[in-house]
Amino acid sequence: MNPPVPAPRLRILLGREIAMGPGKAELLGLIGETGSISAAAREMGMSYRRAWTLVETMNGAFREPVVEAATGGRGGGGAQVTEFGREALQRYREMEEKAVSSVTTEMDAFAEMLDPDD
Amino acid sequence: MNPPVPAPRLRILLGREIAMGPGKAELLGLIGETGSISAAAREMGMSYRRAWTLVETMNGAFREPVVEAATGGRGGGGAQVTEFGREALQRYREMEEKAVSSVTTEMDAFAEMLDPDD
Repeated sequence: MNPPVPAPRLRILLGREIAMGPGKAELLGLIGETGSISAAAREMGMSYRRAWTLVETMNGAFREPVVEAATGGRGGGGAQVTEFGREALQRYREMEEKAVSSVTTEMDAFAEMLDPDD
Repeated sequence: MNPPVPAPRLRILLGREIAMGPGKAELLGLIGETGSISAAAREMGMSYRRAWTLVETMNGAFREPVVEAATGGRGGGGAQVTEFGREALQRYREMEEKAVSSVTTEMDAFAEMLDPDD
């Protein structure tokens, strides 16, 4: 079995609130794929309540909503990622990839300092 | 009052555990400055118990301890950051700075998508 590879991740903080990070990005991507907050939450092993809170944080942090619940309300009618939300997600992923790529060499060296048995 | 500036931060994950991130880096730096886990915790508005857990996570994630409690044990005799720990912290900070610098332009554009009233 290979030891886990240390992976640098990028978080984007707005004030003290995390506007976007690895967890929110994954959730947003899954809502886009499944059309449902509860299905996305399930896939991440997260409660619906927690997923809803993360969506509300994102919707509050951005100028425009990134997720819109369809008619039927919270539990009822599914949800979709807005065009604005898709753009935010894509930009976030591009930034993360670029930031991670910028420290590839340093990460390899840093990985040598980590316990391979973890 | 100026709106908060969105700040990208770097986390380094080892498997599912965060080996090093902004919070652990700050804690490690403060332990180094104060020579005490409890003083560092206090400065961060964090419980001693929480700080101790973070220290244990770091000590377990790296090949060598990053913090050593002095004689007197957990609460008693202070703590110091090891040479190894100082190197890990410095490397982490260098990586974070480099990663963040690599996406400065993209962050400026992303910031435009965030709600300035937050």
